[in-house]
Amino acid sequence: MAVGHMSACKESSESAARVMKHLQLLSFVTERAGEITRRYLTPQHQKANALVGNWMKKAGMKTHVDSAGNIIGVYDGMDRNAPAVLFGSHLDTVRNAGAYDGTLGVLSAIEAVHCLHEQHIRLTHPIWIIGFADEEGTRFGVTFLGSAAVAGHWNSAWFDVVDMDGVSMKEAMLSFGLDPDRIEDAAIPRSRVKDYYELHIEQGSVLDASHRALGVVSCINESRRFQLSISGETGHSGTTPMSCRRDAVFGAAEVISAFEKIASEYGDRLYCTVGSIHCAPNLANCIAGSMELRLDIRAGDQELLDILEKRLFEAAQNICRKRRLLFESTRYFFSPLVHCCADLMEKIRKSLEKIQGYSPVLQSGAAHDASEIASVWPMAMIFMRCAGGKSHCPEESVRQDDVRCGIEFLLDLLCSNY
Amino acid sequence: MAVGHMSACKESSESAARVMKHLQLLSFVTERAGEITRRYLTPQHQKANALVGNWMKKAGMKTHVDSAGNIIGVYDGMDRNAPAVLFGSHLDTVRNAGAYDGTLGVLSAIEAVHCLHEQHIRLTHPIWIIGFADEEGTRFGVTFLGSAAVAGHWNSAWFDVVDMDGVSMKEAMLSFGLDPDRIEDAAIPRSRVKDYYELHIEQGSVLDASHRALGVVSCINESRRFQLSISGETGHSGTTPMSCRRDAVFGAAEVISAFEKIASEYGDRLYCTVGSIHCAPNLANCIAGSMELRLDIRAGDQELLDILEKRLFEAAQNICRKRRLLFESTRYFFSPLVHCCADLMEKIRKSLEKIQGYSPVLQSGAAHDASEIASVWPMAMIFMRCAGGKSHCPEESVRQDDVRCGIEFLLDLLCSNY
Repeated sequence: MAVGHMSACKESSESAARVMKHLQLLSFVTERAGEITRRYLTPQHQKANALVGNWMKKAGMKTHVDSAGNIIGVYDGMDRNAPAVLFGSHLDTVRNAGAYDGTLGVLSAIEAVHCLHEQHIRLTHPIWIIGFADEEGTRFGVTFLGSAAVAGHWNSAWFDVVDMDGVSMKEAMLSFGLDPDRIEDAAIPRSRVKDYYELHIEQGSVLDASHRALGVVSCINESRRFQLSISGETGHSGTTPMSCRRDAVFGAAEVISAFEKIASEYGDRLYCTVGSIHCAPNLANCIAGSMELRLDIRAGDQELLDILEKRLFEAAQNICRKRRLLFESTRYFFSPLVHCCADLMEKIRKSLEKIQGYSPVLQSGAAHDASEIASVWPMAMIFMRCAGGKSHCPEESVRQDDVRCGIEFLLDLLCSNY
Repeated sequence: MAVGHMSACKESSESAARVMKHLQLLSFVTERAGEITRRYLTPQHQKANALVGNWMKKAGMKTHVDSAGNIIGVYDGMDRNAPAVLFGSHLDTVRNAGAYDGTLGVLSAIEAVHCLHEQHIRLTHPIWIIGFADEEGTRFGVTFLGSAAVAGHWNSAWFDVVDMDGVSMKEAMLSFGLDPDRIEDAAIPRSRVKDYYELHIEQGSVLDASHRALGVVSCINESRRFQLSISGETGHSGTTPMSCRRDAVFGAAEVISAFEKIASEYGDRLYCTVGSIHCAPNLANCIAGSMELRLDIRAGDQELLDILEKRLFEAAQNICRKRRLLFESTRYFFSPLVHCCADLMEKIRKSLEKIQGYSPVLQSGAAHDASEIASVWPMAMIFMRCAGGKSHCPEESVRQDDVRCGIEFLLDLLCSNY
């Protein structure tokens, strides 16, 4: 239904300004003044749903909150029986977050529908927009709760997970006004949705470095995370001869340096990060008896990751054996390699070419709600440049003109294909 | 006055058993059941003073608590105007401590006086014993409070230091029943004391490895501690290309490995420890923006430490510059090299030769109350072996037979010289 979408774009500057304003209003919904922190099932989650629901209504959509706490807007199509084109991203944040991660995709999609609604344009297919309630896992340490519920992947063990205040997810749901016994109702039947799209900030610097506004995502990289433990023996820093030590810090330093050296052989084809370290007993005058590290490795190539993983752990084992340290590792997180749907990528490419004259293809280094959705519906993602690639921090920033391009793109995508 | 000390030793096995029993009783005075934790100005400090004061009285001593909270016992000499021979060590502990660090020296000295008292032996010089109220600095992060007060080195800025519950030292003193305005009264006039001795567990493994019970300390090593900060840039672990990172963890790992390599060139002549590490933001999926390390270097040779310090910091600077990381360092703790008094060492040597037939000389890797005292009075230390050199942990352990030797040694030292 390519009816009148060019006219719908006429006011896209005004639309972009409205999205920026809404992003700002949403950024004020925070658990902690002076920063943006909005976690699952908090009063701020409630308030964000209310705000976004209101904007959905103004865009001509019917809204409801599902049994997982996701806010859903529906813009009817001319064929009420046609499966929906679904747009989603998340409304929750990490601690001390930026204003665009997740929210940009939800608010841009609402704005596109707003444009259609103002022009009295109705497509063949219904348009659904979901503001996912939890993607970051900031409160309960479990990620993708919102999209898992929608995809029908809810794990009932999650109900018993507690937050840092000892409140279980089940208790939090009840306080929020949700019925945990009806969690399965959040799963959307496969037949009701045709395609899933997610517009998101890149959270990397590829678009920014190449001066591109929007790009199409080819895949979401596989991510494997490991808890590594290096154990030696604690002792007095002033009385234990150097030759008698089994120092976990010195051991871990050599292990981490070996990781860096090995990873560097693959250039920018993969990502290797030790981002979390706990030293014990962590006293200036005690030799460390243990070091706990968290290792995150990612790539768009599983074989490459297999090779990397094997090499890293062999190196760590050898170093620790030589030093009479104990090395142990546990994989505690896995996010599989997900390929975007070639068909949808082609639709995106065509619209991007029309709107901005080019269509760069890039990988997603971070996992997204789309990762969870991909096993149920055809999925594709569009990345918008963010300044310096900075994300998960207050410096996160997008240009209003890029947002304008994004809305124009969404309208073209919708009107050309649905 | 070498009168009858041999007979005073007759019952030294019984004496050793009593010291072991008292050490155990004192170990039950703890802030937390199941471990030994006894901090400055707590009810447990009060109770320890009461117990120790009672044992002092049973040993024929007059007791008082000074204005810093130290418990002091006085065993009069025949010449009331003669300066005292002073024995001291501390009654406070680290968290989850062993039962011998500090307490052994106090209780062994009391037992020696007890022996003299039972045999109605009085020396020319008075004997003073101090149970220092704080050496570890566990509560307020300031070490040697008890001995600093006695040495006249109290710093009035300490009154405002707060513990982890926000209680200032001044408030804690008032609650304890001490008058902070009279803190200067705790300083013992220089002329009142002739010599200071401290018997202490070695907290290292030299004596244990060489199967020796007691040794004479030649010096207390110099200790320098530095807060090191390595700053890069945080970022998303899945989206920031490896070639664009300024990763503080990778940088710190190379720096620590360089420290180890440089230190290893000097064998066991020095001690080099990175025992405390704080990584920020310390998340598995974030590149670390900063690493804070604590470096502790010690040796019995200042020049060697100067060279070491220079080399370590040059290496760190070079590594960080190469990696576009910022390296900063601050020295936050300094405990100077302190030589024991040659005269007193000779007295100790003679008594050790008599009691155990040998007199090994060793350095102290840890600082002690003696470090604080050394600038005021002639000072010497005697080390007792502890199993495996383990200290500052529940595994801290001494043999009853070594304690027996220690008491015999103290009696010989006293009766032969004072």
